[in-house]
Formats: sequence, structure tokens, C-alpha cells
Amino acid sequence: MMYAHWYNGTHNCKTVFDAYFRKLPFGNGFAVFAGLERIVNYLNELKFDEAAIQYLAGQEERYDPRFLEELRNFRFTGNLYSMEEGTLAFPNEPLIRVEARVFEAQLIETAMLNFMNYQTLLATKAARIKQVAGDDQLLEFGTRRAQEADAALWGARAAYIAGFDGTSNVLAGMRFGIPTKGTHAHAWVQSHESEEEAFERFAAALPGQVILLVDTYDTLKSGVPNAIKVGLKLKEQGKKLLGIRLDSGDLAYLSIRARQMLDEAGLNEVKITASNDLDENTIFNLKAQGAKIDVWGVGTQLITAGDQPSLGGIYKLVAREVDGEYVPAIKISGNPEKITTPGIKEVYRIVNRATGKAEGDYIALQGEEDAVQGQSLKLFNPTHTFIRKTVANYDAYPILKPIYIEGKQVYSLPGLEQIRQHHKEQLKLFWPEYLRKLNPELYPVSLSQKLWNMKMELIDKHLGQRP
Amino acid sequence: MMYAHWYNGTHNCKTVFDAYFRKLPFGNGFAVFAGLERIVNYLNELKFDEAAIQYLAGQEERYDPRFLEELRNFRFTGNLYSMEEGTLAFPNEPLIRVEARVFEAQLIETAMLNFMNYQTLLATKAARIKQVAGDDQLLEFGTRRAQEADAALWGARAAYIAGFDGTSNVLAGMRFGIPTKGTHAHAWVQSHESEEEAFERFAAALPGQVILLVDTYDTLKSGVPNAIKVGLKLKEQGKKLLGIRLDSGDLAYLSIRARQMLDEAGLNEVKITASNDLDENTIFNLKAQGAKIDVWGVGTQLITAGDQPSLGGIYKLVAREVDGEYVPAIKISGNPEKITTPGIKEVYRIVNRATGKAEGDYIALQGEEDAVQGQSLKLFNPTHTFIRKTVANYDAYPILKPIYIEGKQVYSLPGLEQIRQHHKEQLKLFWPEYLRKLNPELYPVSLSQKLWNMKMELIDKHLGQRP
Repeated sequence: MMYAHWYNGTHNCKTVFDAYFRKLPFGNGFAVFAGLERIVNYLNELKFDEAAIQYLAGQEERYDPRFLEELRNFRFTGNLYSMEEGTLAFPNEPLIRVEARVFEAQLIETAMLNFMNYQTLLATKAARIKQVAGDDQLLEFGTRRAQEADAALWGARAAYIAGFDGTSNVLAGMRFGIPTKGTHAHAWVQSHESEEEAFERFAAALPGQVILLVDTYDTLKSGVPNAIKVGLKLKEQGKKLLGIRLDSGDLAYLSIRARQMLDEAGLNEVKITASNDLDENTIFNLKAQGAKIDVWGVGTQLITAGDQPSLGGIYKLVAREVDGEYVPAIKISGNPEKITTPGIKEVYRIVNRATGKAEGDYIALQGEEDAVQGQSLKLFNPTHTFIRKTVANYDAYPILKPIYIEGKQVYSLPGLEQIRQHHKEQLKLFWPEYLRKLNPELYPVSLSQKLWNMKMELIDKHLGQRP
Repeated sequence: MMYAHWYNGTHNCKTVFDAYFRKLPFGNGFAVFAGLERIVNYLNELKFDEAAIQYLAGQEERYDPRFLEELRNFRFTGNLYSMEEGTLAFPNEPLIRVEARVFEAQLIETAMLNFMNYQTLLATKAARIKQVAGDDQLLEFGTRRAQEADAALWGARAAYIAGFDGTSNVLAGMRFGIPTKGTHAHAWVQSHESEEEAFERFAAALPGQVILLVDTYDTLKSGVPNAIKVGLKLKEQGKKLLGIRLDSGDLAYLSIRARQMLDEAGLNEVKITASNDLDENTIFNLKAQGAKIDVWGVGTQLITAGDQPSLGGIYKLVAREVDGEYVPAIKISGNPEKITTPGIKEVYRIVNRATGKAEGDYIALQGEEDAVQGQSLKLFNPTHTFIRKTVANYDAYPILKPIYIEGKQVYSLPGLEQIRQHHKEQLKLFWPEYLRKLNPELYPVSLSQKLWNMKMELIDKHLGQRP
């Protein structure tokens, strides 16, 4: 497609694309935007090296050498606006807007969507788990089940953004400064003559980090009693058994019994970690059953977003330059939800000054900035337009920030702690009805009247007049 | 855990680990092993660079500097045996066996499982799709929905191993030589004044590659008629419209109507490509409805293994050196399927000489090689031991091949075409009952009597005598 543009001399035409998703994953009421740092790294390093040029030169398309020369000199020179990582995002609003030569805007599509889709999906899944875990500690344990290496690394980061406390992925620890936590494996116990010996040796090696996996042979008859022996010895030495870990069996029953046994031995401070295919639903139910679990190790179901492993993020042309001016572009579809919203748009989060809570998001055309300067604002559902409300006393926060202007990065990537903090503050902006994991209220995302009218006119133009 | 071994002086103890899975994904009757090339690349490049050493030195574990020195000199010096990529694999049989110092064997666990789990999962999903597609062309279109970049690349390769014909991922094309195929996007059409102009310009640029996406505005009223105009013009010029692509709407109805329209225009040779969240079930149903689709573009559901996004592959200690000799190791669990099979084992595929078909896999201890040299062999289900049969006239093929011996790679990685061929030949070894996608027959995986007895003895030893 890039070649076809180049061949026809249309490759320098300016275009505007929106990246967004149509449907929230997991039945959740919001998504957590993530992936920007990865996108910035990608854009900063994007070029065609000699091997790539040679590969393309050998393809059956027999590309014109001048096209390959164009690729050799390629770099991103456009504008890019994006939500900040950790921001709550909703369907059908742009998370990212790209303004660039069509040549550039199209080239970056696939990689950008890949990064945005996965990390936003993961951060959203992690936010659901965080919600049920409350102040319990949450550890990301999914690397061996992640869909290849990049997913393990960037998934650990996305989980941390949305409230996880650590990861077992040492590379993620090294690269992003995420606290790393792990325990020993069953193999540690198996590779000693007895479980007790295995526990003692582990405690001797890492006296400040003793978490003992107690289910290699028999949790209650062997694992917990042996851990208690080691815990008491450590206590005598002025040291501490940090925790035990349950990794199979009935976690509710076993944790309650283990807690009793630990408490009876005077080891009240020893924490219980649990793992074994956990997700927000199992954690929610275990807590409801009174499980005595302090730390949750969440692996497979988090790192693959097990119940819905993809966010259907898309990237659609919304405007293109014709004779030096941008004209809005639309894509029609027999599926109503697949019709795009045309035009260059800003997204405002409308926050009620009296309550401090978000009333809805408001998407307006560029040039409509005045419309959100304090006068009363009509929010309505773009599909079911009778669902509407008017807000008067509000602040309107634009949520797409300039990241690149004319190819130059104008945004400093915040540190991970800052992103986590931003995410926490975002959560506070929303009523709990929008945040609950089951059957959340639909958060209003409205179009400006002008934008809605323009969209309807374009639909009419393409389909003929309405009946 | 590695540190604890080093601290206790047990890090040089020799151990044997099996990598395997317990349950087949998607309700399938087999898995397709993949990931070995990635594992070999990883092992060949595995080392701790200075940045990693520095990171570890700064951790709160306060590792002994001599331990870090040990890491600095780390390389894999063990033995590794593996199935070849493309081989059909079954639950509870080793896909990979590692024999190494515990220090090394444990270090490589997570990365190896990550690679094996994802690529085997993907190749298995692709094999299911291939089965329903028959001789139709299959294209992998999932990059933008893959779980990060590595998954897109290695997923494309796994799909190709199991019978896909191409990918839209150019990097996979460049790196692995997989044929790359794609079409233009909706944005191509939107960025022209009319659909017809867009099609004509695309055909002008890439006359040998013209596949036109016909659903930007209205498939049957606009897209197909415009494509036919371009197709007829190309025909006049002695060129060819390769195909049209449907990406939304009712693919059965639209493809049948589009086929009629193309045929009536004399464009019988133009192929119809379809995409839009396809998987083996939608393809199966579309074909049953008589859809006229020649080429299937499969994205999200393939590249994420949508209906089951993880293979629960695990890595378990099965033997360890004690006083210079290997002794078998077991892990007991309240969940019967989680009890490991101890000992150093070979896996044989038992092929009936009369039919040329596999009768079952037979797992025997090292040293039992004589047992599979032609005398009658008893196969039985290790859980339901009354399910048994005896085979007499057979060949026994060992399926774990030596890949590394004492750290030296002794296996030449085959080319991708060779792996595809091997996979095709594997499929021919099995009766269709084991291969069908719905409710397949359970393929027998048997333990040798000696191995089964040894496992039972070890269980008794750990749990006390049976009642």
C-alpha cells in the first residue's frame, strides 16, 4: 500500500488517523491505556536498515529503486497525540491521533496497534484484579505462560501500572525498576533428601527472603509443619520467616488451616502467598470464603488476559488533505458500530466541580475549544441520542497530549512510579458504579452536536438521503 | 533459588528435568510441537552481561560476589533432548528433556517454557484451522492483535509450520522466508476521491498483486462492481485481477453473490479472500453454508489462540544425582494429574508395520531400549490401566533427539520447508479419529511396566503404604 501511494505520487498527502477500540474487554467499565513508552521507543528507532532494503528489493513486486531509496531515508516526521499511560479510556474515543504523510501514518499502524492493544488489555485486566485484591499484595507470576518474551516483559510493566506490586520477571525488574519477587520451585524441595532440609538450606542462603513453598508432598501434614519448624528456628536467631506459599489444592481451606497452624505456633506475622491459575473471579470468591491469603501470585490468566486475549484496537483514517485543507473521511459499514467518526477531534474529560467526579467524555472537533470553556454542555449518547444530560459547573480536561510535533518528541516519558500515581488519581475521578467489575454502568462518551451532525451528513452523502 | 543452590554448594549437582503439558488445548486430539529454533537461539546466546550483573549486585538479597562471578562465567554445558518441530505431541510425555547442573537446568526453565508454550499452542491452533481449510489458501493476518511483537513474529512461523501459506508480517517474511501476502486497507480507498479511482491506482502500482478490498462503502453495490470494472480493464491489458477481499458483513451471502457477479462478468479466475475474526469454527460453518471463499485471512483468533490462550506446559525435576548416580524424583499432589512421572525416560512412537499408522506412544526408562526391539509390547493407560492393548508387528521410533551434548549443539536446525514437510508426514502417521477437531479419540500414551511400577513405589514411599 505504501508502494502504491509512492507510485501514484500520493505518498506525501497529509492524513489523520485515530487509534481506538470499539468494545471494552472482560465486561469491564473502563480500559487502562498503556503502551505509549513502547510506541515512543519504536518511533525513535524506526528505520529501514540495509538488510530490510535488500529483502524488499528481492520481492516479486519488483519495487522501483527510487521507492527503496525513499524507505532508506524514512523517519517519522509527523505529529502524534496520545493519552498518557494509566489514563482510563473508553470505547470509540481516540487513544492516539496521528497526523502525518500517509506514507508514514500507514507504516506505523501495525506496530503501534500491536503495542497499544496488548498493553492496554493487560493493564485493564490487572486493574480488575487490583480492584478485588484491595490492599493485598499482588505479584505478577506469568512469564512462562506469556505469549513469547516481549509479552512477559511489557505485560509485567502494564500490570505494575495498574496496581500490581511486583513481578517474578527479573528482566522487567532490571529494565523498568519493578520490584522483583519470587519463591523457590517444587524442584528445590525435590532436589533435597527431605522437605525440612530443603527449607533449612533455603533459609540459610537467603535469610531475608524466606518464603517456603509448602505443597510439594503434603501441604498440611508435611509442608506447613516443616515451614513452622524453620520459622521458629529463624525467630530464635532474631530472623524471620516471611511467608509460605500454597500452589495447589483448595486454597480457601488450606490457607485457613495453615493460618491457624502458624498462629498457634506463634508465627502470626508469617504471610500466606497463594498461586494456581488465579484471576479476579477466583480471588473474589476465595476472599468471600474467608481464605486467609495475604499475597496473590497471578500468572497465566493475567499475562495472557485469559478470558479475552485481545483488545480489538483499530486505526482509522478520519481526515485527509485535499488542496491544502483537511477534509473529514468516513468508513461506512453494514455493522453500525463499525462506522467511523470522521474529523480531527479532541477528547475532553468533563469533571463536575462540585463532586470532583467525571460526568463523561466529550469529543469535539478541533476548533470547538470554546465550546468547553464553562458554558453549559450537552452530553448525549451518539447511538441512543435520547440518553442525554446537561452539565454546567465543570472543568474540561483535554486528554490527548502532544507526544511528537513534526517528528520531534515533545513529551518526556514519565517514570513508572509517576504513571502508577497518575493511574490511581484517574480512578478517584470516577464513581464506583463505573468501576465495578460486574455489570458496570455505561460511562457517557458524547460527541459534540457539530461533530454528530457532520458524521450524519457524511453517512447520508455515501448512502444517499435517509428515508 | 540459584543463589540458594550456590550458597549450599549444591549448584553443581546434576539433575534431569522434563518439559511437558498435561492437557491438550482447544479440545484437540494432538499438539504440534514448536519453539525449538527459538530455544536453540536462546541457549546459544545465553549469558549475563555486565548490566545484568550490576543489577543483581544492587538487589536487597546482597548476593555474594563469588556468586555473581559464577554468573559472569555462565554458559549452558548440559544435554538437551527435544522433539523436532512439527512433531505431533501428546499430554504427559516429555517434549524436551534437560540434563544439566541444577544451576543451569533451573536458569533456563522460564524462557524455555515460554517459547515452547506459545509456539506449540500456536502451531496446534493453526493445525486445527488447516484441517478445516483443506486445500484453500491460509494467510496469517494477526500482527496488530498479537500479544506484543515477539508473538507476532514467532506466531507467524508456528502457523506456517502447521500449514499456513503466508503471513502479512513482513519481518517474519524477511527473517524466516515465509511468503508475505497482504492487501490494501480501507484507508487506501478512503484516501481517494472514489473507490473506483482507488482501485485503479492500486492496480497501476502493483499490476501483479491486485487484490481489492471491496467493503469500504457497500460491498455489493459499490465494491464488487468497481472491482469488476478494474478486473475487466486489467484483462484487456493482458493483466489479471488476482482477487477481491471481504472483511465484514455476512461472508457466506456476500461471497456467493460476489462469485456470481464475478463469474457473470467473465472473471471466473478472480479469487475471493475473506477475513473478519475467523477461526476453525467460523471457517467450518462458512464452508458448510456453501460460501465461495478461496483464501482465508486469519488474524486475532489464531495469533492469540483466542479460545485458549495458553498451553500449560511445565518443567519438572524427574531425577537427580546422588553419590554419582541418578535417582528418580517425584512430586506428589492432591490433584492426581499433577503427580509427576519420575526417572530418565525415552519416548517411542509405536508404528504398526501393517498399517503404517501409530498405535500409541510408549514411555520407557533409559536402559529399557531392548523392550521395544520388536517383541510384543503392552500399551496401557497409566490412569485407567484396564484400557490396554498389545502390539506385535511394529517399529518404535524414539522421538526425543539429541540437541545439545555437554553444551555443544549437535543438531542442525532444519529449514522451515523441511519442518513443514516433517509435520505433514507426522499427520499421515495418525488415524483420522485422533486428528478430528471435535471429540477426537484419545491417543494412547503408555508407560512401560517397569516405569509404572517405579512410579507407584515412589508414591507409596511418600504417602505411606496403600490401604
